Parts: sequence; structure tokens; C-alpha cells
Amino acid sequence: MNATVSTARIFSSDNAAGTCPEILEAVAREISGQALPYGADDSTAAVRRRLSDVFEREVDVLLVSTGSAANALSLAALTPPWGSVLCHRDSHINNDECGAPEFYTAGAKLVPLGGDDAKISPDELRAAGRHKAGDVHSVEPSAVSLTQATETGAVYTLDEVRVLGAIAKEAGLRMHMDGARFAGAVASLGCAPAELTWRAGVDLLSFGATKNGTMTADAIVVFDRSLTAELAFRAKRAGQLASKMRFHAAQFEAYLTDDLWLRNAHHANAMAARLQEGLKAIPEVGLLGAADANILFCRLPQRVTEGLLADGYAFYHDRWEPGVARFVTSFATAPKEIDHLLQAVRRHAA
Amino acid sequence: MNATVSTARIFSSDNAAGTCPEILEAVAREISGQALPYGADDSTAAVRRRLSDVFEREVDVLLVSTGSAANALSLAALTPPWGSVLCHRDSHINNDECGAPEFYTAGAKLVPLGGDDAKISPDELRAAGRHKAGDVHSVEPSAVSLTQATETGAVYTLDEVRVLGAIAKEAGLRMHMDGARFAGAVASLGCAPAELTWRAGVDLLSFGATKNGTMTADAIVVFDRSLTAELAFRAKRAGQLASKMRFHAAQFEAYLTDDLWLRNAHHANAMAARLQEGLKAIPEVGLLGAADANILFCRLPQRVTEGLLADGYAFYHDRWEPGVARFVTSFATAPKEIDHLLQAVRRHAA
Amino acid sequence: MNATVSTARIFSSDNAAGTCPEILEAVAREISGQALPYGADDSTAAVRRRLSDVFEREVDVLLVSTGSAANALSLAALTPPWGSVLCHRDSHINNDECGAPEFYTAGAKLVPLGGDDAKISPDELRAAGRHKAGDVHSVEPSAVSLTQATETGAVYTLDEVRVLGAIAKEAGLRMHMDGARFAGAVASLGCAPAELTWRAGVDLLSFGATKNGTMTADAIVVFDRSLTAELAFRAKRAGQLASKMRFHAAQFEAYLTDDLWLRNAHHANAMAARLQEGLKAIPEVGLLGAADANILFCRLPQRVTEGLLADGYAFYHDRWEPGVARFVTSFATAPKEIDHLLQAVRRHAA
Amino acid sequence: MNATVSTARIFSSDNAAGTCPEILEAVAREISGQALPYGADDSTAAVRRRLSDVFEREVDVLLVSTGSAANALSLAALTPPWGSVLCHRDSHINNDECGAPEFYTAGAKLVPLGGDDAKISPDELRAAGRHKAGDVHSVEPSAVSLTQATETGAVYTLDEVRVLGAIAKEAGLRMHMDGARFAGAVASLGCAPAELTWRAGVDLLSFGATKNGTMTADAIVVFDRSLTAELAFRAKRAGQLASKMRFHAAQFEAYLTDDLWLRNAHHANAMAARLQEGLKAIPEVGLLGAADANILFCRLPQRVTEGLLADGYAFYHDRWEPGVARFVTSFATAPKEIDHLLQAVRRHAA
Repeated sequence: MNATVSTARIFSSDNAAGTCPEILEAVAREISGQALPYGADDSTAAVRRRLSDVFEREVDVLLVSTGSAANALSLAALTPPWGSVLCHRDSHINNDECGAPEFYTAGAKLVPLGGDDAKISPDELRAAGRHKAGDVHSVEPSAVSLTQATETGAVYTLDEVRVLGAIAKEAGLRMHMDGARFAGAVASLGCAPAELTWRAGVDLLSFGATKNGTMTADAIVVFDRSLTAELAFRAKRAGQLASKMRFHAAQFEAYLTDDLWLRNAHHANAMAARLQEGLKAIPEVGLLGAADANILFCRLPQRVTEGLLADGYAFYHDRWEPGVARFVTSFATAPKEIDHLLQAVRRHAA
Repeated sequence: MNATVSTARIFSSDNAAGTCPEILEAVAREISGQALPYGADDSTAAVRRRLSDVFEREVDVLLVSTGSAANALSLAALTPPWGSVLCHRDSHINNDECGAPEFYTAGAKLVPLGGDDAKISPDELRAAGRHKAGDVHSVEPSAVSLTQATETGAVYTLDEVRVLGAIAKEAGLRMHMDGARFAGAVASLGCAPAELTWRAGVDLLSFGATKNGTMTADAIVVFDRSLTAELAFRAKRAGQLASKMRFHAAQFEAYLTDDLWLRNAHHANAMAARLQEGLKAIPEVGLLGAADANILFCRLPQRVTEGLLADGYAFYHDRWEPGVARFVTSFATAPKEIDHLLQAVRRHAA
Repeated sequence: MNATVSTARIFSSDNAAGTCPEILEAVAREISGQALPYGADDSTAAVRRRLSDVFEREVDVLLVSTGSAANALSLAALTPPWGSVLCHRDSHINNDECGAPEFYTAGAKLVPLGGDDAKISPDELRAAGRHKAGDVHSVEPSAVSLTQATETGAVYTLDEVRVLGAIAKEAGLRMHMDGARFAGAVASLGCAPAELTWRAGVDLLSFGATKNGTMTADAIVVFDRSLTAELAFRAKRAGQLASKMRFHAAQFEAYLTDDLWLRNAHHANAMAARLQEGLKAIPEVGLLGAADANILFCRLPQRVTEGLLADGYAFYHDRWEPGVARFVTSFATAPKEIDHLLQAVRRHAA
Repeated sequence: MNATVSTARIFSSDNAAGTCPEILEAVAREISGQALPYGADDSTAAVRRRLSDVFEREVDVLLVSTGSAANALSLAALTPPWGSVLCHRDSHINNDECGAPEFYTAGAKLVPLGGDDAKISPDELRAAGRHKAGDVHSVEPSAVSLTQATETGAVYTLDEVRVLGAIAKEAGLRMHMDGARFAGAVASLGCAPAELTWRAGVDLLSFGATKNGTMTADAIVVFDRSLTAELAFRAKRAGQLASKMRFHAAQFEAYLTDDLWLRNAHHANAMAARLQEGLKAIPEVGLLGAADANILFCRLPQRVTEGLLADGYAFYHDRWEPGVARFVTSFATAPKEIDHLLQAVRRHAA
């Protein structure tokens, strides 16, 4: 068992949180009795039905053990080895997965694009989608991957996603959405998940759940179901076809029941908003970028950063540029934890 | 939740079982509070200490989500892309992982060897280890992988492992053990895990747990610790570095506490022995091969197979050769379930 | 320059030969003047036209530097990473290319089949084509590759190729022909190249030339032209798109002019027949298998093998089984060289 | 045979040239007689001795069919699949090989760096070599690859190479030099090849020859000979071990005899200098960057570009930015061809 602290002080990532009672209970219901392995169980079927409801159409679903696996499998199904994946230069797939996309695609290339708030610039996508297309001397533009919410905590608007989707379609690019924080984006926009995904051109969605409440399970939601068979082979071959799949599925069933996934995301977003509100009132702190979901970037005086670290707070700082810090809230963040953090910032800033 | 039946009737694999209360409780203790992600938590550290105790030496440990991932990662660390993995022709890595080893190794070749009871023949290993070694026209013999217990339910004796280890060493082959049912083998032999592994030459062990009680976690035990850094990169890149690692680790902590892993294995083996004992008394049934652990092969009259299927029993039959059936017991198999199965066999055989 | 001997004594392979004057002359015509690179030159276009004539239909052509590259590229275009290539257990792709097919396919599996004279058994192909098809736990049967002429010097009859083609078609397998010695097979059968390939179901042909006269160039003949674009990317990426392609193409132009390719093959086959005829009359020598093309296997007394080696002859012996030797003739083998070899055999046998 | 024009008008690349009489003659000497295949011939051995002389130390050599293969094989030997190759953003390996490095390395990542004249900035290399080193979430900085001469026709000075070499060494990076135009760089600097390579820290050199005179052969020069065995397996597996290696080797023997390689390079450089000199005197033309070797960039008025194209000249223009054109000379460029080109520029500029 891990040592816990009375007041949670890890703001480095939402993956420091545990899970929800509902999810644990769902798992507990699976511990006895038998079930067919490898996803032939009832729970896995139920997850597929629930996600079909969420997305207002028939979808296929693969449950995997990490978001990296969800992303890399998706990209491999959308990009040939000689293809390129157009993505934001700050994207997780480009920077934080140790080349998982390159591994799973058998050596495709990630082409980094610019754009504010870690959102892909439509102009850059348009140019990159045409760049040396059909030229055997170059990797072939094949797919675009956008992160929703982005790595800086911004959320693409519906229109922004549609614009990128239209550019992708015109250029013949397949479209992937890295939705490690998809719930937060939906909660932030208040729109239908269908609008934000397949209706805007998304072929495959990494439907993240671990950061928002589950323990060991993420999902690929397959809108282009012609890819399902290939994905199934790829998943098995990647060591991602769990034998006791029901334990992943049970987490997802609970996560999708009574909108737990959205409630969790609303809460996480609200905690970031509370933090933002509080920091705004502290003149020594400079807020940076959009904090549409549960990630907040700000500029902190050196003494504040040092003070917080001395207090035992964990968060990324001085990683992007000197003086810049990042705080991430989660479904499990309590309002008073935000308040304690704000008090500490104030104390050190004074 | 999955439909359960009052009497478990799935004997097709030990992965149809759920988990143990101890393991669920350990997970439950993790659900609140925060922990550092990606294995920097206390539970993961504890698992490493416990496995070091089990193996009577310092080991490194990687927790992964499937046995296929444990095998494929291990083989990738032991075999260059131009190398070959010598394995039994009936081995799981050769037949049942959809090319996961080929994927992870970037295209190494599995060279199938023969031998009774799915155990690698020492003579064939000796010959294959020398075959075209150093010849650039051929893949280079690089590693040997043995399955303990084997796919037919046999268990290599300590001497048998040592002999293969000595041959491997002489030929300069690295050594992997696929221990999907390692606990069953240890329980069957009653020997020290250290003897069966690193002292006999094993460099990396896939320490299977899912088939014997955990839900979503298997492990690689690293004896050659010079491989640890490489394995860590490979695991991340394979989408096998779980962010909430503590939920895998908690399962393992419980699994390793008070010898739960061995108790579970002893029970599964005992259930197979009970079944064997019962079948022996039924003249229409012919026992096949060794049933050293929790897998039992037998020859069944067609009417018995059909009768059992009609009763709702699930098991593999007519897959290897006509008339041959396989039954697998687990930590969760109740004695009365074996007795019911035996009654059914008797009834249909009569 | 290599030391040459007045009488050629290398019978280990047809690749010990040099090239033909016609081919050198064609290259010489290219040495001055400029040409567009990467196959946009006139010679490359001419090769495509000539091969379209040879095969009585429009084909696409990729010129590559080795037969291994031709095979591996072809297999990669026909087999997904999770697929399997069904091939003879004695095939070159399975044994002699250091895993090139596994590399180029990103880890597909070669499934070795049996059959006499290194020809794939139709029954084994039928069974393997169905084996676990659609089962994600296993590699997916995807392609069949046959070697024409085979590694033992036999030639599939037209009917034999058609039978395998029909089985492949029924099973949904793509079909590759390793024609490292295709010319020899055509010369032996006296049939139309079209009959032996695309009309029998072959999608891609490795049209070997180096063993039969060219210096540094082999070709892939593309019958399924929907694969051409993919092959072009794969070839570039594999380092197989030569900048000065015209120097490969010039060799091929000459090779295809006035049936040089067939004349060379007829000669090589005739030399093997002459050797066979001569050996038949030596009671101490036992001929083995069919010698339909330019490879001949026989059983030699130990003293003969040793005597020939002492004379400076080079050939494979005791590699397949003790006492078995292989002799390979080529377009450049002179009748008197065969006669000298036969005299030597007789002398040592006496 | 390709249509030739009395005055060569292709300035798009040095690979439009043919070959030298000396090289053809060397090949001609190989056409009859036999030789052992796969590089076991005398010519291949001689090439190794000659390159050892050139580099003033024992080296190993692999002859391959393209520069892309030389680069990709080298990088694969220096970079693990989870590693990164630090290279200039304008480098050929990054832009013009369709992902060959990613393919051969099994998915390593190319990290593009900046710097003037397509030379890697020492500061950027220093930073990139440290970036997330040892962090499993990121690819591991593993190798640096510099192009000598660069893609813009500049040549790293000896000091510049040494500085990068020292940074690489300190960061634990392996060092590759893409010497597609290595001869041009040596000719330009007038320094010892040894100084420019292994003495400055280069482990593997792609010793380009095709652009400077050979027909179908490039080479890897191995300074770190502990890599030779691995490279041999990788080359075979990549379809790069030619059976009739002597025909590659013969080209190289001639290329290395009597300094043909340097004489060719001096000539190509002189032709570029002659062009530069001439253009300097045309006020409407703006010279760009260094033209240290045989590549020259300049700014041309639109009417000049159009006029030259109408005249039948081939060259890259408007590819990097509007109005920018590139001219490449070669060993085969005649002074009068430069003069004709200059006349044409003057005529169109007037």
C-alpha cells in the first residue's frame, strides 16, 4: 500500500489519483465466477453498447492497458510504415511516448506542426498534408492526430475540429484523436461526443479513462469499423489483448454508468477553474494560455516555486521555460486542496 | 457484470477464473490517496523487494499487462533483429501470440524444436544452437525460451532445466523462461524458485500471475540486471508502462504475501490431480502425457465430448488431434466442481 | 581484379560467374551523357516495355540490387505484419536470407511446409491456408511463396503451379514466386512465362537475373499493379531505389534482348544435363532428385569429395546430409569444364 | 540506351552523370572468370586495403547499392529502436529517404536541429544530446549524423567537425557522417580523410561514390570495428549483400586508384566555382550561402528560371523558397557546359 497524505499535494498529473468507489465496486463484482477470456465476456460487450450510446452510432471498442497503447495502435492502423503522422510539436505522441508510434507503425514519421495552445494550425496542416505527397523520396502524409484537450490544457472548439477534419479529408489524411483527456474536453464544451469526433471526421479515438478515474484501462473507439479486424490482430500482437478482459471492462462499465466519466471531468475542470480564479487574484502570479480543462500553466516567482516544493507539493516547473509551472487537477481533487494550495502560493508570494 | 453460474464449468483455461479476495482488498486500499505514477510508487518498490526475496537475490521487475507482453519484451531484450529464438514447436510464443515476439524483436525468427511433453529436446537445442552460427546468410542463434510448466501441463525437472541451461551457455545463447504457469511448476517440483531460474542460467523470467490469481498484471523478473535499462525503454515504447502502476503492483503485493501465489498453484495442481485420479478410474477415458501442474490432456470418446458440451462445459477438444481433450483447473476451481465434472464424464461414458 | 583460373572450378553457385559481353556493352553505352535519376530514364522505361512483352500484358517493374531485396519487398507488399507467408521449409526465403522477409514485413512469420523436391505440397498448403484463419491469437495466413526453379533444382510443372494458385485463391492467399532461377524454369518447361505466373495466380514475381547473367540487378515484376505505388515507397525506404538506375536498366535491356535470358538459361540447364549424363555412368555416384534446371544433387563417396576439393573444386557437400553434394552450372559454364569435372570424379571414384 | 544530348543540361543533381572510363574498364576486367560470391572475392578485399590506406588505419568496409542504404544501415548500428538520431533539419536522412532510417532502426526518431548552411549548430547539439537523456518517456539521444558536404553545398571545417565530435563524445552519442559528397568535402578542405572522420570522432562513414563517379556502388567505412559483425548481418537482411560483389568492388577499386575519387571531386568543385564566378558578374543573380563543394544556391529572376527551363535545362527551383534555384555540377561536367549555362543566364537576365 502506498503512503497517503491527508491532503493530496501531487499536482504534477491527474494520474496520481486513485479511482472511484463505483469503479472498484464494479471490479469487485467480477472477482468470483467465471467468464470467457479475451473480451468474449458480457462486460466487454456491455462497454461496446454503452460507447455506441455515447457516440450515437455503432462503434467497435478495444480496451487496452495504457493511453500510449491506444494511441500507437490507432496510428498504426491509420498510417503505413512509409507514411507520416502530422501532429502538434508539443503533442504527447511526439514527445512523451518514447517512440511508441514509430514502433507500432513500423517506422512511420511524426511530422511536428505548430499552432497556439498546442492546437494544430490549420494552415500548417494544409501545407503539411500536401508536402511531397506522392513523392517516393519522402514519407507520405497519411494521418493527422490531434490531442483533445491539448497538452497545455486548451480545448479545440467544435469548429476548430471541423476545420481540421475538412482539411484532412481534402488531403486524404486519416484522422486520429488522442483523447487522453477527452472527457474534460466534452465537459468543457458541453457538446455531443459524436459532434466532436466522427461527425467531424475522426476515424479512431483514444478514449482516455485512466487519467479520469479508471485504474488500468483505456479504450480505442473505432468509428471506421473497417479497421476493427486489423486493430484486433495488432492489439493481440502488441500484448494488449488481456485474457481477463472483464477486469478492464468492469472499470469501463462503471465509468460509463450514470455519466460518471462526465461528472468526474466536470469536477476536475471545476477544480482547475477554482485554482485559476484564486491565482488570478495573486499579482505575483501570471496565468498563461487557456485553461479550458484540468491543466493550468502559470508563471511563478522563483521563491513561490521553491516554497511550494518545500511544502511537499509536486508539480512540473521550469520544464518548458524558466519560471513556468503546470498544475493538473483530477476527479479526486478536493476543493480544500485547491484552497490549501492557493494559501501556500499566497504565503510564498508575499 | 458477467453472468456467473453456480458451478463453474469453464475448463478451457485458467484465465476464466476471477481473482482472490486478498488481491481485491489490496487494490481497494489503493483507491484513494495519491501516488507517483509510472512505478515510482511504494507498492511497486515493495513488489521488487518481495520478488528479490522469492528469488534469493536482487532482481529488477517490470509489471506488464499481459503474459504476451512479458514474453515479447523479454525476447526483444535477448535477441537482435537478425537473431533466432529457439523454442518448442508447441510453445505459446510460437503459436498463440500472433507474432508478438516477431513484432517486439523487429523481426527475429522463432525456430521450432521438438521434444516430448512440449519440453525442448536437449539434442535439438544443441544442434540448433550451432546451426549456421556466425553465417550472415542465416539468422543467428541468440536465445532459447522454455515454457515452465509446458503447454501440455508437463513440468521440466530441475535437472532438465539445468541441462538446457548448460547447453545454452556453451552455445552463447541467452535464456528466457515463459513462466505463465511458473507457480504451478514450483508447486509441483517443491524446489526453490532460484534453482529453477537464474541458478540454472535463466536471464529473464516471465513470471505469470494472471492465470493464477491476479486480474490485470504479469511481471518480468530480471536476473541479468544489465538488461533493465533497455527493458524500461522497450516497455514504455510498447505501451506497457502503466501510469497508475500501483494498481498492478497492489495485485502483486497481495499475490506474493503469505505465499498466496504458491497456495493458489498448489490448489490448482491438486484439482488437476483430483481430476486425473477420477478419470483414471473411467476405462473409456485415456490419460495422455504428464499432468504435472494444472493442465490435463486425455482421450475422450466422442459421446463424452458431446455430452459435456451439451451440459455447458467449455474445454478444448479435437484441436490437437481427433478425440483429444484438454482440461485446465485454476486456483478458483472447487473440489465439488471437479466431482461434478467427473460425474458427468462417467454418465456420458456409460 | 579477381584472380581467374583457366578452367572454372566453382560449382557452388551460379553466382560465381561473371556477366555476358552483351550486358557489358549495354552498360558501356550508358557511361557518358546524362540521364534522369531514380528510374526516370529511357532504359528503365524500355525494360518495362520488354517485360510487358515477355509476359504478354502490361506489368510494372522495380529493379533492385539483389534477389533477397526482390523477395523481401514482394513479401512485404503481400503480407501484413500480423500475417504469415507459407513457403517450403527448404526455401531460400526461409533459410538463406537472414530474416530479410521478417525485416521487410515488420515481423510477419514464415510458416514452413513440406513437399518433395522442395516443392510445396498442395495438401499442406491447403491445410496451412486454413489454419487458424481469422483467429487473432495466431498469425493470419496471408501469402504463399513458391520458388521456381526450386532450391533442389526441380521445376514445378505448369499444372503444379496452377494447383497451388487455385488453392491460394480459394484461401484468399496472395501469391509470390521467387524466380531467382525463373529463366531456368521457363527454359526447362518451354512454356510461356505468362502461363507460369500471372495466369496461374502469381501477383508478384522476383524475376532473378544475377544468377543468369546480369551483374548487379534483379527485378520485381508486378502483375497486381495496385501494389506498384506501395512497392515504390517500400523500395525507396529500403535503400533500393538506385539513383543511377540506368546502369541496372542497361543490364536488363541487354538481358532481355534477343532472348539472351533464355539462351543463357538453356545453356546452364544443358550443362547440368551434361553433368548428369556423365555422372549417371559412374556407378559410385548416386543421382538424387530431379535436375530439371541447373542444380544437381548427388551422393558422392567420401574419397571423391575429398579428391575434388583437393583439385580445387568448390561445391557444397555434407551440408544437407553426409555424402550429399550439390553442383550448380551457369550460363558461363563451358562444356569442357563439365568434362574436366567428370574426369575428375571418375578418377577419384576409381 | 538513354538519349543523350551533345551538351549536358541536367544540373538538378550529380547523379545524372554516367561513370568514368577507368571504372568501366575495371568492371570489364571482371566479366569473365569466376569469383567467390558475397564479398569473398579479391576485389572486395582490395577495396578494404585501399580504404585502409586512405584513412591511415585498418577499417572494415561494406559495399552497398545506394547511399540511402549506407546511411540507414549505419544509423541502425548506432541507434537502438528507442533512440534518437540528432541531425540537421535539412539533412537528406531527415527529408529525402522516405523514412529509411526509421525502417532500418526499427523505429528510432530523427530529431531535427538547426544551424546555418545546413550545418548542425553546436549549441543545439549540446542541448539535444542532454534532452531527457535517461528518461524512459522520451527517445534516448543516441547518435548524431552530420552531412559532409552539407545539403546546401557547404563544407564543415575540420574544427567544426571536431567540435561536434567532442560534444557527441561528452554526451555519449555515437557519430555518423553522411558522406554522399565526402570526396567533394575532402577536395575542398585539402585535409586528410582521417582527420575529418575517425580522428574527430566519427564511428561510421557513408562513403558516397555514386554521385562522384561509380555506377551502382556506395560504401560504409567502419571505424568502430566492433560494429562490423552486426553490420554484416544487417546488410544481408536488408538485401544489401550482393552475390556478385566483385562488380561493386571493381568500381571502387578504380575509383580509389590514382586518386580518381579526389580528381573527380576537384573537378566537380572547380565547375561549381566556375559557375559561381560567372554568376557573380551577373547583377540580376544573387548568390546564396557557401558553395564550398559542387552545389550552388542562388536567387534567380523569374524570367531567368523560365528561360533556362525553356532551353531544356533541368535544375531545382522554387523548392526551398520562391526565386531560389540550385545547380549541381559533377565530375562529368565540362567547362564549356558551364559556359553555355552562364551565357544562357546572361541572355535571359538581360
